[in-house]
Amino acid sequence: MNQKYFDIAFQMAEKAFEIDEVPIGAVIVLNDQVIAKAYNHKEKDGCCTSHAEILAIQKASKKLDNWRLEDCDIYVTLDPCPMCASAIKQARIGHVFSALSNSDSDNTDIIVKIFQKDRVNPEVFFQSNLAVDKSKKILNSFFEKQRNS
Amino acid sequence: MNQKYFDIAFQMAEKAFEIDEVPIGAVIVLNDQVIAKAYNHKEKDGCCTSHAEILAIQKASKKLDNWRLEDCDIYVTLDPCPMCASAIKQARIGHVFSALSNSDSDNTDIIVKIFQKDRVNPEVFFQSNLAVDKSKKILNSFFEKQRNS
Repeated sequence: MNQKYFDIAFQMAEKAFEIDEVPIGAVIVLNDQVIAKAYNHKEKDGCCTSHAEILAIQKASKKLDNWRLEDCDIYVTLDPCPMCASAIKQARIGHVFSALSNSDSDNTDIIVKIFQKDRVNPEVFFQSNLAVDKSKKILNSFFEKQRNS
Repeated sequence: MNQKYFDIAFQMAEKAFEIDEVPIGAVIVLNDQVIAKAYNHKEKDGCCTSHAEILAIQKASKKLDNWRLEDCDIYVTLDPCPMCASAIKQARIGHVFSALSNSDSDNTDIIVKIFQKDRVNPEVFFQSNLAVDKSKKILNSFFEKQRNS
């Protein structure tokens, strides 16, 4: 885990904030190099699949010309939803470093189960709450802005 | 549930079969009209997110210019994986009609949990094993072809 990749993930979240998307960013790292970064684009794309993690996986897969993102790590500014957790696992990403746990404990239960080894994919190593204050700050600012708009 | 939409989903699965992708198809229906159909394209796209259901959701969202696919149903030739199940739920699709249960019971446990009502999204109504023989036939043919190639 390297804090500098969280800094980049939060820069991505800021970009989402600026365009009125829920501010979540994701960065994929391979051999200490950023190979993909993205931010939530759901409203702008009008599609629920345009989460930061999905967009980052698509960019990384294109860059490596391979759906297997083995030896890659992903940094996210909030725990992934089940869609993104399962995409991370099926991409064979090794480690997920998350800034903040989702306040919905059902989400946590499901993604922890998804990250376990299954018949096809290896276990995904998952750590959360690694940059809590920064993540809460940008999320709270966003929802406050939404309430006041 | 209308069997004719399974026929279209299987036509999609056949297209996947022809290009050596695991033969899975998906069809999204709104007001008794097909608004999107797609088939698994993971190897060709080199990306784990190119499952039939994700591609169909992206097409349907584009068509409706809305990430909310409320009042839509999806027909799939095999139970969705957690990634696709969560995308279906977040798209607010109402009903999932699946031809065949996944033989991995862990997958079933996870997607059943995903389909439950949560704090943001309503429950997804899910029925499986609605066209078992047809789904098994195309999947078995595919894996037999793979073994002999």
